[in-house]
Amino acid sequence: MSDAQKSGGNANANAPKKGGNDNLKLPTRTENFSEWYNELVKRAKLADNSDVRGSMVIRPNGYAIWEHMQRALDDMFKETGHQNAYFPVLIPERYLAQEKKHVADFAPQVAVVTHAGGKPLPEGERYVIRPTSETIINRSFTNWVQSYRDLPILINQWANVMRWEMRPRLFLRTTEFLWQEGHTCHATEADATEETLRMLDVYERFAHDFMAMPVIKGQKTESEKFPGAVNTYSIEAMMQDKKALQAGTSHMLGQNFAKMFDTMYQSKEGKKEYVWQTSWGVSTRLIGALIMTHSDDQGLVVPPKLAPHQVVIIIIGKGDERGPVKAKAQAMAADMKKAGIRVLIDDDETKGPGFKYAEYELRGVCLRVEMGPKDLEKNQVVIARRDAKPAAPGERAPKDFVAVDAAVAFCGKALEDMQSSLFKRALEFQRANTFEVNSIDELKARQDDGFLLAHWDGTPETEKRFKDEFQLTTRNRPFDLKQEPGKCVLTGAPSNGRIVLCKAY
Amino acid sequence: MSDAQKSGGNANANAPKKGGNDNLKLPTRTENFSEWYNELVKRAKLADNSDVRGSMVIRPNGYAIWEHMQRALDDMFKETGHQNAYFPVLIPERYLAQEKKHVADFAPQVAVVTHAGGKPLPEGERYVIRPTSETIINRSFTNWVQSYRDLPILINQWANVMRWEMRPRLFLRTTEFLWQEGHTCHATEADATEETLRMLDVYERFAHDFMAMPVIKGQKTESEKFPGAVNTYSIEAMMQDKKALQAGTSHMLGQNFAKMFDTMYQSKEGKKEYVWQTSWGVSTRLIGALIMTHSDDQGLVVPPKLAPHQVVIIIIGKGDERGPVKAKAQAMAADMKKAGIRVLIDDDETKGPGFKYAEYELRGVCLRVEMGPKDLEKNQVVIARRDAKPAAPGERAPKDFVAVDAAVAFCGKALEDMQSSLFKRALEFQRANTFEVNSIDELKARQDDGFLLAHWDGTPETEKRFKDEFQLTTRNRPFDLKQEPGKCVLTGAPSNGRIVLCKAY
Repeated sequence: MSDAQKSGGNANANAPKKGGNDNLKLPTRTENFSEWYNELVKRAKLADNSDVRGSMVIRPNGYAIWEHMQRALDDMFKETGHQNAYFPVLIPERYLAQEKKHVADFAPQVAVVTHAGGKPLPEGERYVIRPTSETIINRSFTNWVQSYRDLPILINQWANVMRWEMRPRLFLRTTEFLWQEGHTCHATEADATEETLRMLDVYERFAHDFMAMPVIKGQKTESEKFPGAVNTYSIEAMMQDKKALQAGTSHMLGQNFAKMFDTMYQSKEGKKEYVWQTSWGVSTRLIGALIMTHSDDQGLVVPPKLAPHQVVIIIIGKGDERGPVKAKAQAMAADMKKAGIRVLIDDDETKGPGFKYAEYELRGVCLRVEMGPKDLEKNQVVIARRDAKPAAPGERAPKDFVAVDAAVAFCGKALEDMQSSLFKRALEFQRANTFEVNSIDELKARQDDGFLLAHWDGTPETEKRFKDEFQLTTRNRPFDLKQEPGKCVLTGAPSNGRIVLCKAY
Repeated sequence: MSDAQKSGGNANANAPKKGGNDNLKLPTRTENFSEWYNELVKRAKLADNSDVRGSMVIRPNGYAIWEHMQRALDDMFKETGHQNAYFPVLIPERYLAQEKKHVADFAPQVAVVTHAGGKPLPEGERYVIRPTSETIINRSFTNWVQSYRDLPILINQWANVMRWEMRPRLFLRTTEFLWQEGHTCHATEADATEETLRMLDVYERFAHDFMAMPVIKGQKTESEKFPGAVNTYSIEAMMQDKKALQAGTSHMLGQNFAKMFDTMYQSKEGKKEYVWQTSWGVSTRLIGALIMTHSDDQGLVVPPKLAPHQVVIIIIGKGDERGPVKAKAQAMAADMKKAGIRVLIDDDETKGPGFKYAEYELRGVCLRVEMGPKDLEKNQVVIARRDAKPAAPGERAPKDFVAVDAAVAFCGKALEDMQSSLFKRALEFQRANTFEVNSIDELKARQDDGFLLAHWDGTPETEKRFKDEFQLTTRNRPFDLKQEPGKCVLTGAPSNGRIVLCKAY
């Protein structure tokens, strides 16, 4: 920070934005969080609705976030020994029927192909578009696994899946979404459990290190399990409206699918055994989680590691003044690229700086470098950080004046700071909005206040009452919570520990 | 090569493979090229058939090739200014009807979703699974484009598409396949034409530099155009059976789709104009092309830049001997990884070296490093290159003896050599099997011999006769061929240049 002076109260930096465009203004989060989210997604050009029920178009600014997520996750999957593969998008309708719980849960949600190649398909040869791929992948595993020497099989698939949605919302709940689904086979139950928890840890690490989003790791209840799983574990995040969002799940499938599809191996002792399996996934829903964790009333805020553009250099000035500024901007951008920074130059003369500042804030570029002839006379640039907050309400957020030669290093450092600062801020928010509740009155008073740690008697009946009477769902039983026996907050019946309750997406 | 001695006739290197497994043996290419291909795909674990008509399962060894292709192409698309986005897999059935030529060609090939969410969809609200995305993407372009300042729009999508296939073959012709489809909008016809040809160049560069596969760039005939395009250009490759394979296409769409979907922009002069468009794509079919260009009777041969594994280090020896060898192998593998080489260690004691050599040849690992206690005593390893050919028929292919300390550098260099050597070999093959034909007799005599450069009168009737009487299709009119007027090889009618005729996949 030695090359930079903080300019907190500086009149110039705080001048009103010239040419600001009211069309870019969002509803505020406190006014209407839901409207704020919907408008932000559209105006920041992240995604659009389409003419296909509940399906979205992911625009370049949104898709670039997904690409960065994919790259980071894919690297982590490969480090943990997984390989990618690809399985058909269509699944024979009869497969789904092989796992009872699976079919009961997914049948009402699937899209069915009944005609193909210009003809109706015979009744028994219809297909559904995959809502998830346990069945069709197990069909392959059955062919691939012979002996204990073939195990473990550690597969991941990047794919589109489809679950017909009645109340769709961009990124959060769409008929078609993009995801990855891991599917693995193991020789023993212990190996499968270890894998299930290993991948939950990978998700936690990804959420923390890349999304700057703190999550609670834990086990789902019996009624919230994946259809066909023995155990489901999740990471749960808190959005800025204090609602929970399930950000990833990892399932220990036991031998359920193996038994349906006869997925067996010959053990060292020569015995035929069913494999033990896991599956785990995260989806484009994470983009919705990212938005609702960090963004503000000005628009999108993205942690630098996932930002489509980390820096925008805005060229200021009129007519002939711009030439030398542009040359300097291009040199600086070239240096930034060498330093691995994703940078953009804006040289559009038809729009004013104020309009542009608002636009790049809306679109979530992490750092804005303002460069004009007067700045260059002083051999400096002005740098604004997307997550900077004003010192006092009504004031402008501070900017930095940085020597031209120091700008690249400054930006590198600022991006690192921003990454960790966003995580810290989100973690503080989550902690400040997590409460123990020990009575029905407390539960009622706190029902909109965030994560509620409550004793529960473990019955689905009480779980249903949480939902019906308080709109609260059980999120998970956190691993990191020291558990002690107590009494259920609703029924007073014995409880062997606390669970997280929250309104949820 | 200073650290290595060639061992061409060396008895040791030419010893018969111990423990070789006959199950791994493929039909030869000359015996039955088609069977050779099918068996290779399965035994090299590249892809399997599935229970879904014409759809394949792409196994990790095949999918890794696709990932390397994706990475290389994606970098080239981004360097040329394109951004990725994602559009729905379902397309409202009515969209297809908007482009007459488009619907006529695609309607018999599509899979139709008629039920979803547990109910039949109303007649007018059915969907098809995308066979290609011009229509649904144009629907978005119509919303996105307002002014000339929004142009060009340069979009690419990585996606699965579906065309119902009656005679499917793994990778070459599958009901579902993976591809990228570029879609762009421009202000002028000249800009669109420039883009069409730019992306054809990108495909050529990719085929040459990454796939080591020479291609002929040129223009398709009127009857071989993409449905809805004004002009279609292709790259055409020659397989080892001398048949042609269309490896990529780039289409100048004119204003056809823009007019269907009212995709318009306001020009500088304030006039409403239709945009000019292009689309271009390559698919997992390229994996089939790669196999049929380079592989041999022992199995898969992959250019190093696309190989899932570039080097395998095989540990030889028994019992206690193996420990020190393994330590050395791990150190060497670590150095290779640092040098950016994708390396694998095989320490499986249950299979003999001969079996393993055959297996890794089948699976297409570029270099095999054999490391045993006796080699290490001499401070050397034995290195076999996958594309090495025996000096004389019946002999074994030569191997190299390389000092341990020189092995990493040797492998780096060998991989580079192999990449360029495969291209050179394929180019020589293509050139040796390209002929001018100037009479019906020559056409007949040469009909199985490769690319035939023939004068054609330009009529679809003659084109049909090529097909019906000789099973030859027009591939393209090559850009690089000096064209002179002549007489059609079949009808004697005037021709303004030669076209490539070939049997084709």
